[in-house]
Amino acid sequence: MRTAVLEGAGKVTLQQRPVPLPGPGEVLVQVAAVGTCGSDVHYYEHGRIGDFVVESPLVLGHEPSGVVVAAGAGADRHEPGQRVSIEPGVPDFTCEYCRAGRYNLCPRMRFFGTPPIDGAFCEYVVVHEEFAYPVPDSLSDDAAALVEPLSVGVWACRKARVGPGSRVLVAGAGPIGLMCLQAAKAFGATCVAITDVNPRRLEFARGLGASEVVNVRETSLADAGIEPDVLLECSGNPAATGAAIRAVRRAGRVVLVGMGGDEIPLPLAHVQTREIEVTGTFRYANTWPDAIALAASGRVDLDALVTGHYGLADVEQALTIGARDPGSVKVVVTPQR
Amino acid sequence: MRTAVLEGAGKVTLQQRPVPLPGPGEVLVQVAAVGTCGSDVHYYEHGRIGDFVVESPLVLGHEPSGVVVAAGAGADRHEPGQRVSIEPGVPDFTCEYCRAGRYNLCPRMRFFGTPPIDGAFCEYVVVHEEFAYPVPDSLSDDAAALVEPLSVGVWACRKARVGPGSRVLVAGAGPIGLMCLQAAKAFGATCVAITDVNPRRLEFARGLGASEVVNVRETSLADAGIEPDVLLECSGNPAATGAAIRAVRRAGRVVLVGMGGDEIPLPLAHVQTREIEVTGTFRYANTWPDAIALAASGRVDLDALVTGHYGLADVEQALTIGARDPGSVKVVVTPQR
Amino acid sequence: MRTAVLEGAGKVTLQQRPVPLPGPGEVLVQVAAVGTCGSDVHYYEHGRIGDFVVESPLVLGHEPSGVVVAAGAGADRHEPGQRVSIEPGVPDFTCEYCRAGRYNLCPRMRFFGTPPIDGAFCEYVVVHEEFAYPVPDSLSDDAAALVEPLSVGVWACRKARVGPGSRVLVAGAGPIGLMCLQAAKAFGATCVAITDVNPRRLEFARGLGASEVVNVRETSLADAGIEPDVLLECSGNPAATGAAIRAVRRAGRVVLVGMGGDEIPLPLAHVQTREIEVTGTFRYANTWPDAIALAASGRVDLDALVTGHYGLADVEQALTIGARDPGSVKVVVTPQR
Amino acid sequence: MRTAVLEGAGKVTLQQRPVPLPGPGEVLVQVAAVGTCGSDVHYYEHGRIGDFVVESPLVLGHEPSGVVVAAGAGADRHEPGQRVSIEPGVPDFTCEYCRAGRYNLCPRMRFFGTPPIDGAFCEYVVVHEEFAYPVPDSLSDDAAALVEPLSVGVWACRKARVGPGSRVLVAGAGPIGLMCLQAAKAFGATCVAITDVNPRRLEFARGLGASEVVNVRETSLADAGIEPDVLLECSGNPAATGAAIRAVRRAGRVVLVGMGGDEIPLPLAHVQTREIEVTGTFRYANTWPDAIALAASGRVDLDALVTGHYGLADVEQALTIGARDPGSVKVVVTPQR
Repeated sequence: MRTAVLEGAGKVTLQQRPVPLPGPGEVLVQVAAVGTCGSDVHYYEHGRIGDFVVESPLVLGHEPSGVVVAAGAGADRHEPGQRVSIEPGVPDFTCEYCRAGRYNLCPRMRFFGTPPIDGAFCEYVVVHEEFAYPVPDSLSDDAAALVEPLSVGVWACRKARVGPGSRVLVAGAGPIGLMCLQAAKAFGATCVAITDVNPRRLEFARGLGASEVVNVRETSLADAGIEPDVLLECSGNPAATGAAIRAVRRAGRVVLVGMGGDEIPLPLAHVQTREIEVTGTFRYANTWPDAIALAASGRVDLDALVTGHYGLADVEQALTIGARDPGSVKVVVTPQR
Repeated sequence: MRTAVLEGAGKVTLQQRPVPLPGPGEVLVQVAAVGTCGSDVHYYEHGRIGDFVVESPLVLGHEPSGVVVAAGAGADRHEPGQRVSIEPGVPDFTCEYCRAGRYNLCPRMRFFGTPPIDGAFCEYVVVHEEFAYPVPDSLSDDAAALVEPLSVGVWACRKARVGPGSRVLVAGAGPIGLMCLQAAKAFGATCVAITDVNPRRLEFARGLGASEVVNVRETSLADAGIEPDVLLECSGNPAATGAAIRAVRRAGRVVLVGMGGDEIPLPLAHVQTREIEVTGTFRYANTWPDAIALAASGRVDLDALVTGHYGLADVEQALTIGARDPGSVKVVVTPQR
Repeated sequence: MRTAVLEGAGKVTLQQRPVPLPGPGEVLVQVAAVGTCGSDVHYYEHGRIGDFVVESPLVLGHEPSGVVVAAGAGADRHEPGQRVSIEPGVPDFTCEYCRAGRYNLCPRMRFFGTPPIDGAFCEYVVVHEEFAYPVPDSLSDDAAALVEPLSVGVWACRKARVGPGSRVLVAGAGPIGLMCLQAAKAFGATCVAITDVNPRRLEFARGLGASEVVNVRETSLADAGIEPDVLLECSGNPAATGAAIRAVRRAGRVVLVGMGGDEIPLPLAHVQTREIEVTGTFRYANTWPDAIALAASGRVDLDALVTGHYGLADVEQALTIGARDPGSVKVVVTPQR
Repeated sequence: MRTAVLEGAGKVTLQQRPVPLPGPGEVLVQVAAVGTCGSDVHYYEHGRIGDFVVESPLVLGHEPSGVVVAAGAGADRHEPGQRVSIEPGVPDFTCEYCRAGRYNLCPRMRFFGTPPIDGAFCEYVVVHEEFAYPVPDSLSDDAAALVEPLSVGVWACRKARVGPGSRVLVAGAGPIGLMCLQAAKAFGATCVAITDVNPRRLEFARGLGASEVVNVRETSLADAGIEPDVLLECSGNPAATGAAIRAVRRAGRVVLVGMGGDEIPLPLAHVQTREIEVTGTFRYANTWPDAIALAASGRVDLDALVTGHYGLADVEQALTIGARDPGSVKVVVTPQR
C-alpha cells in the first residue's frame, strides 16, 4: 500500500509498504480520510514534541475514518463494509488507570503517529475492534475523521463540567478552540466567548455560534467584560493564559487544552481566594460515542471546518498549508484518491 | 387587590385583599402571569396533597412572573419596572441544608400556594429580592412564569447527570414530562424517547423534538427497543414505573419526578446487578438562571406549551380545563387582564 | 490436585483434577485460604441463585489468597513466591463498561465459583496477573482472603460517599454487615449504628466498634433515635429495608448490599421529598489496593471475624456450620492443610 | 470588657470596650480560648495581608471557643451555658454562592479579625447562632478553639478527595500542615508523608502519625521515593511547590492551602499529560460538625498542638513567640484568665 513516511524533520516521502494484518481482536480498516493536526505539523517541522522524538521513519496521522475490510481472530464486532471513525490510542486495558476508566493515562498507550507507533497517512490501518466506532451514513468521511479533534473538545467540556448556564471562555480560535466552542454549545452553554489575535479566525468562530468574539490584541478581557465560569485554554500562550485565569469567576474551572511549553505562571492568590480548579487534558477517554452522536445530530458541524483535501502524495503540502494560508482551518488527507 | 381564594375543595372565590407590603430584603411584584400546575388542581379537587391540608382559605398559584414595583428595606437588587420570574419557595437560608446548597430541603421552606402560605393567583405578591430573577425582554410573561416548571426539568436532568450522549427516557408526556424532554435536549441529549397513553400528548411531544414516542398502552418498552441510560419518571404510575426501571441500562440513573403515591415496587435484583441509581426530586435549587438562559436562547420553547389564558375571575375554569379538554397542556392565569 | 466439587444441591465431593496452566498474562496461585460466603452456602443448599443455575459440576469459593508459583506468557508482574490476595472476577477489559472504569458491570465477567466458572476450593487456581494483588507479610492468609468481603464494604461506602461526619446505619450484622461497619469507620465515620435480630451478632458488632447496636426485634429505629445520613442495607429483608429507608435523613444515601429477593417496597414520598439516593452494589471495582491498605494498617481487623477453619475434605462442613452454630461468623477453607 | 486592639503594625494595646449586644438571630459568647494563627501574626507584623489593610484599630483573633451567655431576638438554638466552637466567618446567606453551598466564597463575608471586622481577642463576641456549634464536654476549650484550623485541614482533604488508600503528601509541617496531616489520616489515608526543613517540626509530625517525614533541605522528594496521589501544599514556598507538583502521580490532586505570594510556576506539561487537578482553598464551608466529631472521637488530637497560653494582656507575646521559639507550634489566648 502507499504510505506517506516522515523520514526526519521536513521530509515526507511516499513509499510502498505491505498492508498490515489484523491481530486477534483487531480489524483492518481501509482509510477514507485523515485530519491533519498541529502535532503532525510540529513533528514534521521539528522532528519531535517534547520528549517524543522521531528517531526512525514514522507515519503521521491520528484522525482517521474509513471502512472495515477484514477482521482478526475473535473480532466480531463489525461487519465488513462498516464505516467507522477510529479512536487512535489503544491502551493496555489492564493497568490501574485503565481499570479506573482513565485509560488515556495508561503508561503503555500506543497512539497513532506518535513515536514509535505509526499513524494513518496510508491506505490501510489496523486497530482494536472496540476502537473502531460505527458512524451513520449521514456523517461524511471527513466528519468521521474529525470526531477525533471533536473528542478533545468534548473531553475538555467534561473536565470543566460545562452545562446549561455555564459562561464559557475559549481562548484561541484555532481548530481545537473551534471544537471546544462547538462542544461547549452542545453541552448546553448558552454563553460562549472566544478570543484570538487573528480576525479571520474570530469571524469564523462567530459563524460557528460564538456569543462574543474578542481580539485580545486590541481589547483586554476585562475591557470586554468577560468573566467566565469556565476557561478552555486552547491558545498555548503562557502570558495570555495567566491573564485569562485572572478573569475567571469564583468557583470557576480552567482546563488547559493547548500545549504551551513547560511552565505557566499560576496566579496563586486568585486561584486560592476564588477556589478555582485548574487541570489539563491529555487526549480523551470514552468520548467517541458522544462525539459521534453530537455530529450525527447536527449539533456540531465538522464539515464546516474543512478547508482543503490532499492525497497521500501531497501530505507535505497538507502539513504546510497552515503556515502558507492564514485562512486554512483544517485540512484532510484522503488516501484513496 | 383582587385575589382568587380557595375556600375549600372545589370552591374558589374572588376577594378583595390589601396589597402586601414588602419586608426587609423583599420586593413587591405586580403579577403578570401565573402558570397552573397539577398540584393546584389537586388542592382544588381534594383540599389536600398528602400531609399538606388546606385548613383555612388559601391562595393557590406558584408559577408567577411579573414586574417589580416596590422594594422593602435594604432591597437594592432590582430597579422598579424590572420584569422578573419568581422562584416561589424561600428557605430560611441558614439551616444545615441551606448552607450546604440544598435549600430545597430546608425544613422551614415557605412555598407559594402550599398551606399555609399564600400563592400568586392575585394582583401583587412579595418575595425575597434574590428570588425574583430578571428576565430579558425577549421572554414573554408566559415564558417567564413557566420558568418554574422548566426548573423541575432542569433539576431532574442535573440529578440524572444528563449530558451529550445520554439516552433518555421520559415517562409521561404531561406538562412536566414535556419540560423534562426539552431540558434533556438542552443538556445535550441527542436521543430522548417519551411515553404516554394519550396519542395527542405523544404527538405534541414529537413536535417538541422527541426522538421517539411510545404509546405504552400499545407497545411495551422492550418491544420498542428502549434501553435508556436515564429514566425521568413523570407519569406517577407505580406499575409503569416498575416496568420502566427494568428497562434501564447498567449504571443508569432513575429520577422520580412525578408524585405517585406512597410506595412503588423497586425491582431489587435489577437495581443491584446493574448498579442503577434511583432518586427523587423535590422542587429544585439554583435552577432559575440556567432555566432563564435556556428559554431566552431559544433552546427551550415555553410559549409552545401554553394552550389557554384565564383572568382571576376564571381561576376555577383554569383549574378544571385539563379535565374537560384532553388537548389542554398548560394554562396561564393573567391577573392584570 | 484435590478439588472440592459441588455436584448438585447438597452434594460436595473431593476429586482429583489436573493443576490448571496459566494462560498469557495469567499466574498460577497455590491457594492458601478461601473464605466461605453466603452465596457459596446458597448454591450448596439450592443449586442456584436467581438466574445463575448450577447445571454441571462446579467448584465454589471466590475469596482466595495464596502464593504465586508460576506465570504464563508475558506475565511479569509478580515474582514466584509472592503472597497475593485474589480478586475473583475478571472482566473482558474492553467493553464500554470496562473502559469507563465500571468493570464490575462487564457483561462478559468471569467470576470464580459462579456457574459455569470454577472457583477456589482447590489447591491451585489461575488468574489474570493484575487480579492477584501483593499483600505484606503482616497480613495473614486468612486476612488476605477476606479482602474480598472487605471489598464489598469498601465499595458500599464509596457508593454511599461515607466520610468523616457521616452518620451511618448498617442494617444486618452478618459478615457483610460487619465488613460495612468496619469499612465505614475506616472511611472516617465516627457514628455507625448497626441492627440485627441476633443478640450475639450485635455483641460482636459492638466489639468491632459500632457506636450503637439496635435489636430491631425489640426496638424500632425511631424509638432508638436512629436517623442516618447513610443506610448500608445488608439484611436482605424487604420489610426491614422499607422501614430503614424511612429513617434516612434528607439528602441521605441508601446502598442495597444484601440480596433480598426480587422487589422491595420503595417509600416514594419519603425518597422524593427528601431527595434520598438509592442504589445497589454489584460486587466491586478497583477496591483491592485500598482494602489491603486498610487491613495492613490495622484500621480494619479481618482475622477477628474468622471463627473456624476447614480442609478441602470438609467443605460441606464449612458450608453448613453457619446453620448449625449461631456463633459462627466467617469460616475459612485451607486447601493446603 | 477587656479587648486587645491592634493599633497598627507592631502595636497591640489592652482597652476597655462595651460588651457587644447580640442582634436578631445572634448569640453572645463569653470567649474561653482563641487560637493564634499565622495571619494574626502577619497583620501584627505588617499591618496588612495583600489587599486587606489595617486602616483603623482592629481586634485580631478568629479561632474562638466559649460559652453562650445571651441570645438576640429569635435566636433559640442554644441554651445559656452551652459550650461552643465558633465558625468565624458569617456570609450574607442569600447570594448565588451561598445558595449554591459555597458560602466561603460569599463576596459579603464578614470574617473575624479581618479588616474592618473585629475578632475575638476580647472577653465577649457576638455571632450568628448557627455559627456557634455545640461541643461535648470531652472537648477542651483549647480543642474547641482549634476546630477552626482543623477545618482548614478538613476542607483541604475534601477538595483533594482524600479517602482510604490515598497516598498523601503534606508539604510543610507548620500548624496547618499538621492539621492537614491529621485530617488526611482521619479521612482514611493510610500513607501520609510530610515535608519541612525544620527537624523539630518533622519530629512533631512523626509523633502525630506521619508515615514518612522528609527534610527537603537534605533529601529531594524523588530521592525519598514520594509519589503522592494528593499534595496538600502548606509550605507557601513557590519553588518547593513547583517541585512537589512534579512528584504527583497521574490523575492526582493538588490543593494549595498555604498562601505563598502572587504567582507560582505551574509545570504545564506535567499537569496536562497526567491530568492533575490543581485548586486552592479559601477558608472552608460546612466543616464544623465533621471537625468537631473527629476531635471528639479522638481521631484527631488538637490539644497536642498547643504549646502555650497567654492572657489578653499578653497578646503581643502570643503573636511573637513563634519567631522567638522554634519549638512553638500553636499558642492560645485565654481571655478569662
